[in-house]
Parts: sequence; structure tokens; C-alpha cells
Amino acid sequence: LNQDCPSEFVAFAGLLAEAAGEAIRPHFRSGLGFDDKADSSPVTIADRAAEAAIRSLIEKAYPDHGIWGEELGMIRPEAEYLWVLDPIDGTKAFLAGKPLFCTLIALMRGGVPILGVIDQPVARERWVGAGGQPTRFNGNPVQVRACAGVAAALLNCTSPLMFRTSEQQQAFAAKIAHFGGDAYGFALIASGFIDLVVEANLQLYDWAALVPVIEGAGGRMTDWQGQRLRLSGSGDVIAAGDGRVHAEALRLVRG
Amino acid sequence: LNQDCPSEFVAFAGLLAEAAGEAIRPHFRSGLGFDDKADSSPVTIADRAAEAAIRSLIEKAYPDHGIWGEELGMIRPEAEYLWVLDPIDGTKAFLAGKPLFCTLIALMRGGVPILGVIDQPVARERWVGAGGQPTRFNGNPVQVRACAGVAAALLNCTSPLMFRTSEQQQAFAAKIAHFGGDAYGFALIASGFIDLVVEANLQLYDWAALVPVIEGAGGRMTDWQGQRLRLSGSGDVIAAGDGRVHAEALRLVRG
Repeated sequence: LNQDCPSEFVAFAGLLAEAAGEAIRPHFRSGLGFDDKADSSPVTIADRAAEAAIRSLIEKAYPDHGIWGEELGMIRPEAEYLWVLDPIDGTKAFLAGKPLFCTLIALMRGGVPILGVIDQPVARERWVGAGGQPTRFNGNPVQVRACAGVAAALLNCTSPLMFRTSEQQQAFAAKIAHFGGDAYGFALIASGFIDLVVEANLQLYDWAALVPVIEGAGGRMTDWQGQRLRLSGSGDVIAAGDGRVHAEALRLVRG
Repeated sequence: LNQDCPSEFVAFAGLLAEAAGEAIRPHFRSGLGFDDKADSSPVTIADRAAEAAIRSLIEKAYPDHGIWGEELGMIRPEAEYLWVLDPIDGTKAFLAGKPLFCTLIALMRGGVPILGVIDQPVARERWVGAGGQPTRFNGNPVQVRACAGVAAALLNCTSPLMFRTSEQQQAFAAKIAHFGGDAYGFALIASGFIDLVVEANLQLYDWAALVPVIEGAGGRMTDWQGQRLRLSGSGDVIAAGDGRVHAEALRLVRG
């Protein structure tokens, strides 16, 4: 079902992640407090510098491609190829000094993400998912692991408070639940260490890069109705390594 | 108030952390599922191997010292010096593949921790707090940051569900809350990136190493009554970089 992603774009996305990392690393744990004026906080400076670096490379290499960035907005949204960027996903982790934040880079064609990069620039960890190829972690193919159901799963989500009903809260009696993490938790599904991530109200730039990474490793990622994620959707997402966990989690969030 | 820690013990604790890291790293993301039999899970194997390596070094260097380890129990608890060990604090993070777990090594004298090491062996990050010295991160002195109050604070805790009353939950309207992290969050107080950590029901081996790290960086760490942490206490702890945040958080948890 997935469209193949031309290999030149896969290589190019790696260059984009490199450029973003160069822009971000000097600002991580740079010592300024987070309660400085928002415009001069380290995370805002790093966010904008990284997105500017990425956009500049895209404009030079593919001037007819569209770009939608979390920080600097949209150009050519009707182009065949649209790059979707979140230079720092996990700003709270960045501010707390935890190397769990990620740079997210996606390439969409016809509304479908065909390439996704999840890059942690401090630990130098990079997951790349591309249509027609296995997901790779730092160059090596990775795969989801088997898991029979939610009761046996390692669940990751930002906070237990996101489960809206007490039914949902009880239902997510996963074997182990770990909180915090943002995109990093999805990446660890692809590597076979986490079984299930449930999140709500994500923006396009939060989820677009994750889909090819999860699917290319053999996992499933949909909205809470089990449908392919869409630009116009709720941004409520469920990702799982094993289809059985995904199906059960779908029933639970709707129950 | 703090007792000085003899410098030979500070150097020795660094060797202990090195040995633990050597034992742990091969098992991190080693690919076995967490739902294998508990005795053969990667985290259990790493936990025991690390503690055995540390204990062996202590037995050789200081055969009259006591040892209390989370995994392998207690010997010579009445000795003047007692080493308190948690080879892997943050087992959920370890299982999830997140390099946030830490090796905790404390040296206590007369019931008071005079030396604490928080070591993250994958990222090779080490905080060392020792009575009479400034806390060091990878060899360099670090300090807490100023923060006027809880409303301006970056709060870290394992989960928002740990706040027992809705009053507490509302009261902890910190500017930013980030969940997950265990000892790693306390270490980031010492480095001035997190302002406040509140946790409940910690064991001695969870908190003993943290106290010298926090205090040596200028922070405060007590129980929820504002008293020095004791072996016989509840294990409910509050740590803050700024005394104003600590005092306000104390009022909130008791309110």
C-alpha cells in the first residue's frame, strides 16, 4: 500500500537531520533558564535555527517542493512533495535537560507520508522510515516485537491524565507504563522495546514522520477510529508494534 | 552540617560506577523482551551483574565496610561506613530502551549519606556529590538555579497520579511538568535545569545517593514534613534547587 520513496530523498533527509542537529546541540543545556522571554529561550532559539537550516537546504535542492514547518509556517502547500518539519519535538524534555527530544522530518506526497526521520541529535540516534524499505536505526534495519495484548504490553504516553474517562484509565492496565517521551517513544516501538503508544491531539508535524518509521518496522499507526491519519483528523493516535495490541487498544479507547 | 567525605572514597566511588557501567551496557537494548521470566530479563541480569561487580570491589578494598544493595541484600549493616547501592534505578526506562536509568551509589556514615553518585552509563553522564565539595557533573562543578516559586518551576515526577489528593494535583500547577525520570530528574536539579522533584515511597537505595548530589549543588532535599530523610521514614521526598520552591512545595503537599 505504501508508496516507494525515491532513494535520493532518503539520503537528502539524512543531510537535513545533520543540519538540524548542528543547529540544536549548542543550545541544549546551554544554561539559560526557561522562564526567560519566550523568544530568547534556548529551546525557541534552537527550534528556529534548526528549521531555518532545514528550509534553506530544501529551497536550494528542491525549490518546487512545499514546506510546512512548526516554527516558520507553510510555503507551496499544493506542491506534489511537501516536507513537514518539527525541529524540536519534546520541548519540555529539552528544557528539562533530557536528551529525549527529537527532530522530526517527513516527506508527504498526495497527503501520505512516504518518508519519516526521527533524530535525537545529542545521543546521535536516528530512525529512518521510507516507503519500500525497512526502517533503519543508525543505518541498521529494525523491527517491532511481538506482544499478545495490552495486558502484556509496555505502554508509553506523555501522561496518564490524557486518558479522558476512568474506563480508559482502567483499561490501560498495561503490564508496564512509562510516561514522558513524545516521538521518542514511537521510535522505540520501531526498535522493539515499546509495544504501545497512545497520544491525543497531535498536530501533523507531530505525527507525519512517525508513520513511515512505525510501518516500515512492521507496526501499525492509526487514529483512535482505526483510520489512516489525515491532515483533517483529530490528531488522536495509536501506534503499536503488534497488530493484536493495536486492535485491542482501539477497542479500549473507544469503549 | 554535612560531614566531609574523605577523597579516597570519592575516587573509589568513580571506579565503582565504571565497573557497574561495564556490566550494564551490554544488556541495554539487548533485544530480549521484558516479559521473559523475571530472572532472565535483561534488566534483572544487568542489575545483578552490576551489583556483584560493585560489591566485589568494595569487599577487596574495604572489607570492614557494610553494603546494602537493592538486589543482593545487606552485610555488616552496623559498620561505620555503609555503601548503599541501586545498580539500576529506573528499570521501566531501561526496559523501554530510554537512556534515563541510573546507577546509584551512596556512602553513609552514622546514618547520613556523605557521598552520592548518579551515573548514566549509556550517555556516560555522572554526577558526584561529596560532603565538603561542590557537586560535579563529569568532573565540572554544577549548581542549582534560582526559581522564585512553584508557579515558575519546572517540575519533574514519575507520574501525576502520585499526587494523592485533588488539592495536591491542583496545587502543583508548575509552569512546566515533565513526567518520568526517577533519579535522573534529581540529577538535573543539581545541574540547574529542573527546579522541583516530588516523589513518594522511595526506598533508602533510591534516595541515599541523591542527597549529597542535591545538597552539594546548593539545593534542598527533605521528606514531606521538611525533615532530613531517615532510614525509618516514609520515603516521601521533595527536592528543589531554590529554597523558596522547596518551602512552597512543602506547604502544598501537606495542605
